[in-house]
Amino acid sequence: MADKKELLSQTIEHIDITRHNPAPLVEAMRNMAFSARDLARAADIYDRMLRDQECGIILCLAGSLVSAGLKKVFVDMVRNQMVDAIVSTGANIVDQDFFEGLGFRHYMATERLKAGLDDDTLRELHVDRIYDTLIDEDELRLCDDTTKIIADGLAPRPYSSREFIREMGAYLAEHGKTRDSVVLAAYEADVPIFCPAFSDCSAGFGLVAHQHERGDRPKVSLDSAKDFYELTQLKIANPTTGIFMLGGGVPKNFTQDIVVAAEILGEDAPMHKYAVQVTVADVRDGALSSSTLKEASSWGKVDTVYEQMVFSEATLAVPLIVGYAYHKGAWKNRTAKRWTRVLEPATQAV
Amino acid sequence: MADKKELLSQTIEHIDITRHNPAPLVEAMRNMAFSARDLARAADIYDRMLRDQECGIILCLAGSLVSAGLKKVFVDMVRNQMVDAIVSTGANIVDQDFFEGLGFRHYMATERLKAGLDDDTLRELHVDRIYDTLIDEDELRLCDDTTKIIADGLAPRPYSSREFIREMGAYLAEHGKTRDSVVLAAYEADVPIFCPAFSDCSAGFGLVAHQHERGDRPKVSLDSAKDFYELTQLKIANPTTGIFMLGGGVPKNFTQDIVVAAEILGEDAPMHKYAVQVTVADVRDGALSSSTLKEASSWGKVDTVYEQMVFSEATLAVPLIVGYAYHKGAWKNRTAKRWTRVLEPATQAV
Amino acid sequence: MADKKELLSQTIEHIDITRHNPAPLVEAMRNMAFSARDLARAADIYDRMLRDQECGIILCLAGSLVSAGLKKVFVDMVRNQMVDAIVSTGANIVDQDFFEGLGFRHYMATERLKAGLDDDTLRELHVDRIYDTLIDEDELRLCDDTTKIIADGLAPRPYSSREFIREMGAYLAEHGKTRDSVVLAAYEADVPIFCPAFSDCSAGFGLVAHQHERGDRPKVSLDSAKDFYELTQLKIANPTTGIFMLGGGVPKNFTQDIVVAAEILGEDAPMHKYAVQVTVADVRDGALSSSTLKEASSWGKVDTVYEQMVFSEATLAVPLIVGYAYHKGAWKNRTAKRWTRVLEPATQAV
Amino acid sequence: MADKKELLSQTIEHIDITRHNPAPLVEAMRNMAFSARDLARAADIYDRMLRDQECGIILCLAGSLVSAGLKKVFVDMVRNQMVDAIVSTGANIVDQDFFEGLGFRHYMATERLKAGLDDDTLRELHVDRIYDTLIDEDELRLCDDTTKIIADGLAPRPYSSREFIREMGAYLAEHGKTRDSVVLAAYEADVPIFCPAFSDCSAGFGLVAHQHERGDRPKVSLDSAKDFYELTQLKIANPTTGIFMLGGGVPKNFTQDIVVAAEILGEDAPMHKYAVQVTVADVRDGALSSSTLKEASSWGKVDTVYEQMVFSEATLAVPLIVGYAYHKGAWKNRTAKRWTRVLEPATQAV
Repeated sequence: MADKKELLSQTIEHIDITRHNPAPLVEAMRNMAFSARDLARAADIYDRMLRDQECGIILCLAGSLVSAGLKKVFVDMVRNQMVDAIVSTGANIVDQDFFEGLGFRHYMATERLKAGLDDDTLRELHVDRIYDTLIDEDELRLCDDTTKIIADGLAPRPYSSREFIREMGAYLAEHGKTRDSVVLAAYEADVPIFCPAFSDCSAGFGLVAHQHERGDRPKVSLDSAKDFYELTQLKIANPTTGIFMLGGGVPKNFTQDIVVAAEILGEDAPMHKYAVQVTVADVRDGALSSSTLKEASSWGKVDTVYEQMVFSEATLAVPLIVGYAYHKGAWKNRTAKRWTRVLEPATQAV
Repeated sequence: MADKKELLSQTIEHIDITRHNPAPLVEAMRNMAFSARDLARAADIYDRMLRDQECGIILCLAGSLVSAGLKKVFVDMVRNQMVDAIVSTGANIVDQDFFEGLGFRHYMATERLKAGLDDDTLRELHVDRIYDTLIDEDELRLCDDTTKIIADGLAPRPYSSREFIREMGAYLAEHGKTRDSVVLAAYEADVPIFCPAFSDCSAGFGLVAHQHERGDRPKVSLDSAKDFYELTQLKIANPTTGIFMLGGGVPKNFTQDIVVAAEILGEDAPMHKYAVQVTVADVRDGALSSSTLKEASSWGKVDTVYEQMVFSEATLAVPLIVGYAYHKGAWKNRTAKRWTRVLEPATQAV
Repeated sequence: MADKKELLSQTIEHIDITRHNPAPLVEAMRNMAFSARDLARAADIYDRMLRDQECGIILCLAGSLVSAGLKKVFVDMVRNQMVDAIVSTGANIVDQDFFEGLGFRHYMATERLKAGLDDDTLRELHVDRIYDTLIDEDELRLCDDTTKIIADGLAPRPYSSREFIREMGAYLAEHGKTRDSVVLAAYEADVPIFCPAFSDCSAGFGLVAHQHERGDRPKVSLDSAKDFYELTQLKIANPTTGIFMLGGGVPKNFTQDIVVAAEILGEDAPMHKYAVQVTVADVRDGALSSSTLKEASSWGKVDTVYEQMVFSEATLAVPLIVGYAYHKGAWKNRTAKRWTRVLEPATQAV
Repeated sequence: MADKKELLSQTIEHIDITRHNPAPLVEAMRNMAFSARDLARAADIYDRMLRDQECGIILCLAGSLVSAGLKKVFVDMVRNQMVDAIVSTGANIVDQDFFEGLGFRHYMATERLKAGLDDDTLRELHVDRIYDTLIDEDELRLCDDTTKIIADGLAPRPYSSREFIREMGAYLAEHGKTRDSVVLAAYEADVPIFCPAFSDCSAGFGLVAHQHERGDRPKVSLDSAKDFYELTQLKIANPTTGIFMLGGGVPKNFTQDIVVAAEILGEDAPMHKYAVQVTVADVRDGALSSSTLKEASSWGKVDTVYEQMVFSEATLAVPLIVGYAYHKGAWKNRTAKRWTRVLEPATQAV
């Protein structure tokens, strides 16, 4: 077995969709069958979202996407007003993006490590594995610690994850080691980021440490209901919405649910007008992650005119779909929604 | 298309594992190959958890399990000291179990509905679909409303989901329409239930309505960091643990993470000693839900001696695994951990 | 790494469904959701096939089923008139069943071997791996050789695979080392077995060696068109048919196609009246193995009244489905079709 | 429901990889994770096959690939000496490619048809469905008939599928309606095509009709052992081989097996030196289609230095992998093997 330095030598490099134009290829897929056709249609629906000036676009992230080399795709979406809000697992935002923002990197694992037989050794070396990717666990602890530092500096009250992540953006603006960070770019572009299960990541460790240290004294808490309330406010303020989902899980369910939440608040919000989901999850286990967008329409959450599931692992489909939309250029004529500005007063009103 | 009453006529019936003894069948699978062998080994590991008097058992639920007919399996686990804590998606606990506790039911959908072409009609009829299962949306709104009533009755402060779900148990103890409820049984047996993404379910709707109504006044909030803190306290108080996971998602990640959280709090908690996961998720998308238990061991979360993944949709595997352990009878000699009692003082100390 | 003897020490044991009655369990699954419900319905459809005195039942086998511990299930089906013809991959029939008939066994592989990192070592030791199962390659060569011996003893002409497999049955009747063989039981019960891609297995090696040795002289050849012709004759002679498919591949396609072939021969054969398929293949790749039975009905091959797909790996589903039908006992009143007797004259007429 | 003409109005269009250069995109995927990295490595291995002047390249096709819009990719591979032999399911070669060679087309199905609820109507309209693709069944019968005409014109003896498919190529050279046909291009470039389960397709219908009409008289038969013998001869004549597999099934198994077959004929053939497989099949069912290339190495069939599985539906991965290799241009310096010329004398010697 190699030593730690040798194991962590080959960095994951993030793909830059601004440099590759897959639009003609994707267009040629439109009249094929199976995933190619579905992907071309999904790319077209995302392009429609961008052309629809009224549409607010919500990007949902589940699965290890940032660590897999897709970070710059999301950064470019944020920078080029191709997305108005992000709903994500904590891992993508904190453990992976904020982590890289602090100057750390992800590394490529060998086939042998991927097979899982050396995980005991990795543990001893403080190397964590995500399938074929490696992380320096000691660096990850520094990331945990940083979230505690941020929590320690905040006034003690319940926060939405969005508010906390905005503080992380401010931290990176000052202390960050790279410009290419989703958290930083979103901070600068007033794109709110929500992690509805926020304690379920590196930030959770920081917050547990914060709360433990505070003991009976006032402390920061993470109000997941406030997350839901805030995202629902955005839906109410901007009724036409499109959702672009990578993976399923909590981000998918949470984002679909705001249509119902708006109704519960007495507002007549329309279903999500556009919806794309990229996933390999199999519908036959009946779980939410794999459930079709048609099924979501029975719940009154997603309209069925412009919806498309794409059966592909995300690292293949995302460069093609987002690359297509980027090079079609609709974003050039699109005005950023700057939804953080909508929320800041709304938040205070709560 | 049938009318609503006709659509909602055939109820889902929950399987009763106390009446079927699959132990000899499962034992015969031990020397086969593929999923049969894996399932037999998983059943054996769960049986070992029950025989290990020091082991605290955490059941993780993701996917539509309660609505699929597995509710009574979980109720029987709780009643027969076969589980000490539950970590779940909100859907299983609130939308499905608490919902049935209020006297409502789930219904079987026809093949035609399952194909997804009549979802627009279902929406108009206020019928929600989960794959091949139907729900009366009007009844679900009553469930949302009930969670608001519970929130309205609580002192305004941050709550862990566990605390809130305990209040739901108290509500069912008084107002419930059936004894067969996971929330009720867990309330009575002092088995804590955590939903780390608690706003992402029917209770989220109730809480959003509660917070909206309260406006600037003091209100109930849901502190997801407190969830993490509490479950970590249990790990610290009871270092030997086994996790029995159905599906992946937040419950899996959250529960695995408490080993690290304990370490961050300065406690030297061992990895989860036993781990079983039943899932059909494919490892090749690199996501947490499908990640192997070996991978979790690189993170220092799960030991590799007694771990087993089972590739099966849960409705097939769970009656066999839990039925095996039930009929082997190790629970008869097991003392319930009654972890709620551990938490109640701990919680107040936070 | 262990030596060969140590590696090949733990034998695969075949499950005996006559000793376990899963019927009450399967019945309890009927009103659940997802795979449990589908499996219960599939079991019911298979039971209907057995109760329908006119129905000829064709079992289709693809995937490593015999080596996985399901051999005795198929033997019991043959012995108890629960199947009238078998269409299979060559591997199940020759490399696995005939192989065990010669006295050889399959062995359980460790987790470590299953991970694939020691396959080079296995190769050096002449040990072949099927996922978590091991085979002694030297024994497999003896199996190849035996098929050559059988070929050498036959009159040189084109044979259907069924004719050749019948000769293998005769060989086992004389030289076999165990009674529990699908090939032997089928030989004794006049159940024809077809392997439409017969050269694609151990027998292919024997036949290649046979043909090579014969050079320009007359030799045995394997006429795959004759297979198709024969199975079609059975469909014409016995129009009501049910198909019970494990996995997909050539056996599925071939058996579905005989409806069309009958029509091409000018006979008005009805679609397969009953159809069950157990598979984990995902429909989204558009391949035949995963294609729904509804899709097959567009081709006029399968009727849609009694059809059911079951999403489960076969080692879990087959003991439940066949066990259910066995213990329901419809086979006791069923008359074996003894289709080999239909074919022997038909064959000679070709 | 639309009428037949309306249903069959939107044709599948085959992607032209010579017009899209994905090489920079694929190169950017090399340092990502998951499928992107695997795909980039697979593309690199295929490029290595093309650069290795000694390497004979065998393309294996399973699944509905030609009808899905990949036909021209395979045609371009044949025309540009990027492949030396093809091993395929009959469906790709006869029902789809030869069918289009006769002037017929495949059509796009709507979402509604894809859901499977109108398959009964499709049957009545003589429209066959492959997932999201439609075929005019009456045209398919003309394709069946044509294979009978070809069989009727041949001398009565056992044929390998390769010999028969070569006759189909000759037929298209004279009667074909389009130049873009794999069968025709392979005929012209002396690239042999094998369908080891040849009766399992449209040609099977033609051959059954031929044999039925001939009755006791001499007739054409399809010798699947001869297929195996011929492909093994190629391996012996050209020991260095690479296999590029789309899907699994019989083509995969058959092609891997020739290494063993050569050994049985007393020749010391090396394992396949290069191997790529694109598939979404899940390894956990233990079947051959999903089995890893590492597993194949335990059987002595595939070397492990240059092997790569790619988890992707083929319509997405193939344009990227083959497009990459095409635009890298190694084929320009490659000499076609023209393996048909190797076989023609070999065949006569058998």
